[in-house]
Amino acid sequence: MTIQQSHEARFGAGLDDEHAAAFNPAIGRMLDHRSCRLFEVEPVPDNLLHAVLSAAFSAPSKSDLQQRSVIRVRNREKLRRISRYSPAIGWISQAPVFLVWCGDSRRIRRLAEHRGHPFANDHLDAFMNAAVDTGLAMQAFITAAEAAGLGCCPVSEVRNRVFDLSRELELPAHVFPVAGMAVGWPAETSPVSMRLPLAVTVHEETYDDEDLPAQVAAYDRRRESVDRTPDHAQFMADRFGVSEDYGWSERRTRQYAVPARTDFGRYVREQGFCLD
Amino acid sequence: MTIQQSHEARFGAGLDDEHAAAFNPAIGRMLDHRSCRLFEVEPVPDNLLHAVLSAAFSAPSKSDLQQRSVIRVRNREKLRRISRYSPAIGWISQAPVFLVWCGDSRRIRRLAEHRGHPFANDHLDAFMNAAVDTGLAMQAFITAAEAAGLGCCPVSEVRNRVFDLSRELELPAHVFPVAGMAVGWPAETSPVSMRLPLAVTVHEETYDDEDLPAQVAAYDRRRESVDRTPDHAQFMADRFGVSEDYGWSERRTRQYAVPARTDFGRYVREQGFCLD
Repeated sequence: MTIQQSHEARFGAGLDDEHAAAFNPAIGRMLDHRSCRLFEVEPVPDNLLHAVLSAAFSAPSKSDLQQRSVIRVRNREKLRRISRYSPAIGWISQAPVFLVWCGDSRRIRRLAEHRGHPFANDHLDAFMNAAVDTGLAMQAFITAAEAAGLGCCPVSEVRNRVFDLSRELELPAHVFPVAGMAVGWPAETSPVSMRLPLAVTVHEETYDDEDLPAQVAAYDRRRESVDRTPDHAQFMADRFGVSEDYGWSERRTRQYAVPARTDFGRYVREQGFCLD
Repeated sequence: MTIQQSHEARFGAGLDDEHAAAFNPAIGRMLDHRSCRLFEVEPVPDNLLHAVLSAAFSAPSKSDLQQRSVIRVRNREKLRRISRYSPAIGWISQAPVFLVWCGDSRRIRRLAEHRGHPFANDHLDAFMNAAVDTGLAMQAFITAAEAAGLGCCPVSEVRNRVFDLSRELELPAHVFPVAGMAVGWPAETSPVSMRLPLAVTVHEETYDDEDLPAQVAAYDRRRESVDRTPDHAQFMADRFGVSEDYGWSERRTRQYAVPARTDFGRYVREQGFCLD
């Protein structure tokens, strides 16, 4: 694909030559990111996984605190159990490599005790720092993996049964799962997921979403024009009926109309976090 | 630098030829990531910033919900005010481009109202999803910027006065800042920040940190052997005294022995989030 085609697939609009010229191959590859859920059986070599993990943990970290860990699940029976946490993730049991990325506030707390200092930051900011640190490493992992030709897919559904997952991984206090990550050599080329235009997500000086309804209506139409959802495939049509102007915004608001993972807060608190 | 040298700088250990061979140039560049806080006055061309932002918003997003926004601060007077939120970030007022990355749960809530659906996920999981979505985009931004030769530095200290920042950016309910980001053409080559070895951060099957004290003691020594902290430069020595075995773990546990951003939870709740 040319940069213009990738940009059109991603944002639903082309690029003039001047803007296209600013994309080098590395940035172009990132523009062309797609999730991969179907893998060749060929294993991922250990040295390559080491390289990708090295890039992942080279990502920035809030105040150099490095509040993230990753757990590799090799045991196939355990992975099958995790794959049953949601009907949508049965496919992860076939992933050549499966990781679970975790926010890790345990390490700094253990070290504080070891060094004889109080831990005086048990609050929401510190929790969020660990979650964001984990997101930074996850994204660096994905970019590095794709630069090597691997495919991957982050899987937040592993949190659907977070107490069970935590037991499987023997997560101690102050460690919590953020997302799984399936990795392997791609056996499919998924479509690019079209994104909202930067006019919606990039703001100048102050937050301004006055144009949101019109922008999203156009975005919904663009997505449906590329990949129309048949009426029978509308999300939870038995509950929500069939919408005549179905699209991304209808799909996603239906999803968040249904409570999910309402136990995550309780789990995180039981892991010892104060979220005040 | 060779890959071996980059790996040594990052993890304090070299690489055999087999492991080095798995690094391609893109992964090697990520291994060599460093933050940049000093920039040439030369501006960042708009087309290049567009390309980097396009890569950033191509990053995965939980359930395709795209719960992130970025706000560009061009107004120099406003940026100077923000740069006074912490004595450590005066330098951001000189950054050619300054962005503030925000978690954005407002968009999906507005759309839910527009589509006539209840928003049934006002809880910690949904808040964390927005924060992690933002982290993914931030990291994609950093990798893309560095692939173009730009330097950047994420700046979480902008949250030190989160109510003031929120007012400056006119953040509405359900939007919250995650971190600032300074961007420009590098006028310095910072040292690589050495990381904990993967033996500490990558776990097999279950979380296991039995070796933490020994691993961190060795890590502290490695970091100090590369870049020794003079006694007078120890963190808050007036309060904590001078440590004879000062290093990363002492530095970072001193930092978290002092409460910081204890108002962030209150801010997020006042922005309308339920964190149960």
